[in-house]
Amino acid sequence: MIDLAMAEELAAQLRVDSIRSSTSAGSGHPTSSMSAADVLAVLVGRHLRYDWDQPGADANDHLIFSKGHASPLLYSVFKAVGVISDEELMTGYRRFGSRLQGHPTPVLPWVDVATGSLGQGLPDGVGIALAGRYLDRLPYRVWVLCGDSEMAEGSIWEALDKAWYYELANLVTIVDVNRLGQRGPTELQWNLSGYARRAEAFGARVLTVDGHDLTDIDQALTAATDGSDTRPTVILARTIKGRGFPEVEDHEGWHGKPFPADMAARAIAGLGGERHLLVRGPLPEAGTEAGAETGVEAAPVDTPPPVYALGTKVATRKAYGDALVALGARHPKVVALDGEVGNSTYAEEFAKAYPGRYFEMFIAEQQLVASAVGLAARHYIPFAATFAAFFTRAYDFIRMAAISRADLCLVGSHAGVEIGADGPSQMGLEDLAMMRAVQGSTVLYPSDATSTAALVRTMAVTPGITYLRTTRGAYPVLYEADETFPVGGAKVLRSGPSDAVTLIGGGVTVHQCLAAADRLAEDGVHARVIDLYSVKPVDTATLARAADDTGGRIVVAEDHHPEGGLGSAVTDALLAEGPRVIRLAHLCVRELPGSGTPDELLAAAGIDARHIVSAARGLLGEASG
Amino acid sequence: MIDLAMAEELAAQLRVDSIRSSTSAGSGHPTSSMSAADVLAVLVGRHLRYDWDQPGADANDHLIFSKGHASPLLYSVFKAVGVISDEELMTGYRRFGSRLQGHPTPVLPWVDVATGSLGQGLPDGVGIALAGRYLDRLPYRVWVLCGDSEMAEGSIWEALDKAWYYELANLVTIVDVNRLGQRGPTELQWNLSGYARRAEAFGARVLTVDGHDLTDIDQALTAATDGSDTRPTVILARTIKGRGFPEVEDHEGWHGKPFPADMAARAIAGLGGERHLLVRGPLPEAGTEAGAETGVEAAPVDTPPPVYALGTKVATRKAYGDALVALGARHPKVVALDGEVGNSTYAEEFAKAYPGRYFEMFIAEQQLVASAVGLAARHYIPFAATFAAFFTRAYDFIRMAAISRADLCLVGSHAGVEIGADGPSQMGLEDLAMMRAVQGSTVLYPSDATSTAALVRTMAVTPGITYLRTTRGAYPVLYEADETFPVGGAKVLRSGPSDAVTLIGGGVTVHQCLAAADRLAEDGVHARVIDLYSVKPVDTATLARAADDTGGRIVVAEDHHPEGGLGSAVTDALLAEGPRVIRLAHLCVRELPGSGTPDELLAAAGIDARHIVSAARGLLGEASG
Repeated sequence: MIDLAMAEELAAQLRVDSIRSSTSAGSGHPTSSMSAADVLAVLVGRHLRYDWDQPGADANDHLIFSKGHASPLLYSVFKAVGVISDEELMTGYRRFGSRLQGHPTPVLPWVDVATGSLGQGLPDGVGIALAGRYLDRLPYRVWVLCGDSEMAEGSIWEALDKAWYYELANLVTIVDVNRLGQRGPTELQWNLSGYARRAEAFGARVLTVDGHDLTDIDQALTAATDGSDTRPTVILARTIKGRGFPEVEDHEGWHGKPFPADMAARAIAGLGGERHLLVRGPLPEAGTEAGAETGVEAAPVDTPPPVYALGTKVATRKAYGDALVALGARHPKVVALDGEVGNSTYAEEFAKAYPGRYFEMFIAEQQLVASAVGLAARHYIPFAATFAAFFTRAYDFIRMAAISRADLCLVGSHAGVEIGADGPSQMGLEDLAMMRAVQGSTVLYPSDATSTAALVRTMAVTPGITYLRTTRGAYPVLYEADETFPVGGAKVLRSGPSDAVTLIGGGVTVHQCLAAADRLAEDGVHARVIDLYSVKPVDTATLARAADDTGGRIVVAEDHHPEGGLGSAVTDALLAEGPRVIRLAHLCVRELPGSGTPDELLAAAGIDARHIVSAARGLLGEASG
Repeated sequence: MIDLAMAEELAAQLRVDSIRSSTSAGSGHPTSSMSAADVLAVLVGRHLRYDWDQPGADANDHLIFSKGHASPLLYSVFKAVGVISDEELMTGYRRFGSRLQGHPTPVLPWVDVATGSLGQGLPDGVGIALAGRYLDRLPYRVWVLCGDSEMAEGSIWEALDKAWYYELANLVTIVDVNRLGQRGPTELQWNLSGYARRAEAFGARVLTVDGHDLTDIDQALTAATDGSDTRPTVILARTIKGRGFPEVEDHEGWHGKPFPADMAARAIAGLGGERHLLVRGPLPEAGTEAGAETGVEAAPVDTPPPVYALGTKVATRKAYGDALVALGARHPKVVALDGEVGNSTYAEEFAKAYPGRYFEMFIAEQQLVASAVGLAARHYIPFAATFAAFFTRAYDFIRMAAISRADLCLVGSHAGVEIGADGPSQMGLEDLAMMRAVQGSTVLYPSDATSTAALVRTMAVTPGITYLRTTRGAYPVLYEADETFPVGGAKVLRSGPSDAVTLIGGGVTVHQCLAAADRLAEDGVHARVIDLYSVKPVDTATLARAADDTGGRIVVAEDHHPEGGLGSAVTDALLAEGPRVIRLAHLCVRELPGSGTPDELLAAAGIDARHIVSAARGLLGEASG
């Protein structure tokens, strides 16, 4: 713990180091760092309870730079507390191969989540605060530094809304109101009362400070943690962009620009030159070591995994709910979230079984995913569900979650035209493309209840972003309960030595492929049928063997737009595997659908059994023609 | 114009028809329609100024159901004003092939935008109101019916913020606060003062009414349009879900469920039975016919299209700005928007040239796209730009824009690892996959300034969602000013009779392919080089010819994740075109990148000239081995 005089020295050092590091890199955001240096000096020196030698300690507070572009400031803090060297700061910042990337990522052990796409750090912080209050039940606090520009992102208000709803008094948001965005003034500029009205209306306790008055800051940070309020706290700090270097203070045109060497030298001299203070703030409260007070209820051990009889019609979304309940019994770290459609996704089954481990996110899909990211940062295993279509709302959060190295289980129901009457707004038709393109992701699309249940268990131990696509309607169970479904596998449902064509489906189209194979068999044409339940990674060996065994004749049928889904997964894999002749018929949803029954819409899209038969015959005719 | 006694009859009819239509369809949301029936009866009968016989009339008000699931109510309104028949309502609703889809779409001439993904109708309405106030300069009003559940979407607050900032007094938002969401109570339930505080803090004039008191509603709708305020108006209507049928009023478990026939019969009897009123409300003000007062400034005709000298280094993002200015001179309907990064995307060039046709959306990408949708609904040609990475924030809006049949021009800058030091949060690496998967989209990725400028001109006349990907760094101009770049084309930059391998790039990797071809030529290996500037649709003929001419040996290099980008576009096209042997090397960004220089990062990802050379040699070795 340092006094305010020392904090003033520290603030000067943080400014100098923000300038030095960005000038040395020739890149970065010094002015956005300088505006928040005073706040950070007081916070890190006097309020953040953090054992810098044990970044993984459960009792540590959390510090999130939602304004990730202020990375020079964050890394200067890391130098000041002695966890990175001045040399690393000066030679590593924004350099190739360095962990001091342009925006913070969890390759640094003191960083919980990747930021840099604005409006995400606070939503992620809500997830950590949820974990702290309801699951860890530890007194750690979550401190989030926001920029004023990012207050324009709707996700900030989703986050503050949920922070109010869940009474996250352990969450302190500090807004660095420096008036200037990237290209000019922000909407509200220094209208702090305007920000205050908004945050208060969303249920926060609001404190307003002069962000360059250390005493004022200190009092606010003390008040924020006095335990007197059940509300989350928002501290509005009126600051000056570039504060400490009069040549640029409150000047437009200096966002994201390092100072040239001569300016940097003048700025550093004006700030009193280089310093190499080593400071430490308070440690976490004693007696709150790892796992001491975990709030996760003891899991009952007698919930058996669901078993489904062959041929019974069960929707895969229902199997998701069943399997999640069973999984929750065995894994107390499993938690679930949903976006107010839990009675459709069947997440409600988990909510009823384990209300203490379920978080309703209402209709706020960005916060749904962000909460999952925060919970994952606290080592929980979050399953977040909504309609497949509505995960598009959160794509930026999913993309960033991959950069955060978060292990998330995402479950999208009501995929494709199969949903029927609700029409195209509710049909996930681009979700496979979207999820496949996420770095390091796993994409699963089961066709029956048994495989769904097995894959839900697998998701819980799969690293990275794992996406499970479920189907609205009920279809027959295809697999015995003891069947295994490894990630990267595929199931060959029909196979024989005289197979002339391969039919590949996923989810609902697997059943259409089976029906098509039956009809082809009536004409003496044998078709291999593959259930491509693992869309990414995909079972290249099984696909290649099928292609080779069936003269390269492949029909892929999918309830998805043409681009980036099952068809692309198959062709990408086959072409990467090696040269071979492929005769492909790709059946998918090419036109904009409307409403109708599932059967009508599958037929209209040309992905039902009849069209699969026709496509297979076309390939066979072509081959013999 | 009807009186309130007639409005009461109309409200009963709207309830009865909402019940009849959804029960006949066996699907739909009667209770969500019944809560808003009184509001709609007064609005449509007494305040909405709309010539139902001329839905395209410029002077008409606009009516948007942001709560698109209340489609039974909307379609019942259409019956009441006589533009659809009772028969169509009863036999068409949610049926296959019908225009009365589960959620409203613009296949109906009285619908501006598709809704059904909650939290989008109001943002779209902001775009229409922007057009009305600043471009059309017509006194029409935009009326948006929101559900209370969707107030949890951050996009609602982005919309209200922009409505305040742009003083959209022509926008009236009516929130149907019926307390119940899909699976249970909303966060705020009937806490109308809570909603009021939020909306007022975001700058709206708020009026609170009993949503079942016709006089109260009428007074609020009158006040909302009295011209006394520069603020947008939000009317909070306290309502009862299922109002009019006591058996379900305010009951959980009735969201999205039509009544069984016996219940429907009781409900209709209780409401006084079927009615077939034909009503009309007020017409638009006289003297405001189409184009009478267009506020778009006369365009100067002397701004020449940009011309770039071969070999000059120009960033394609800069060429976007140049070309948009030139386009704006010739097309007064061209408007531009940006998400507070106009100095990076170069949208600022247009903003400076035509400030009256530029809308700054600050850091709110959902509203950025929604505003463009609204402007397109008013027949403007919107160009909306931000970093490629940040369009992921708006994917749900882009997906829905396709269902809205909106013609949008989206421009994503700073694509790929090429951006360098800022790191992965700022790198668009999944944008091509995302945009290709949009129904009916066009995806363009120019490699030089000349082609960028040509494609910007083409975008303005391309239907549907058109996406242009630009690059941060400056690269040599490759094409003469008179070169043409049709959508669906490709440019063969190197070609000869002895080509042994095809190198395919897009954007920055075109330059890497050219450098690779030079190095291969030094060893006597001739490579065909293709600039795949049109990623969707793709030039299948040119690709097939290249494959056939070069022994099927193809190297695709792209600054994008492996899935759904250039590589998929090439393989999808070649496999669809017909059977042939392909020997593919797909170079792309497979690992999570960090910071570095562009050269370092292109090399680390394996997509630079050296890796292209190596891949080409690998294919040649394989072929001869």
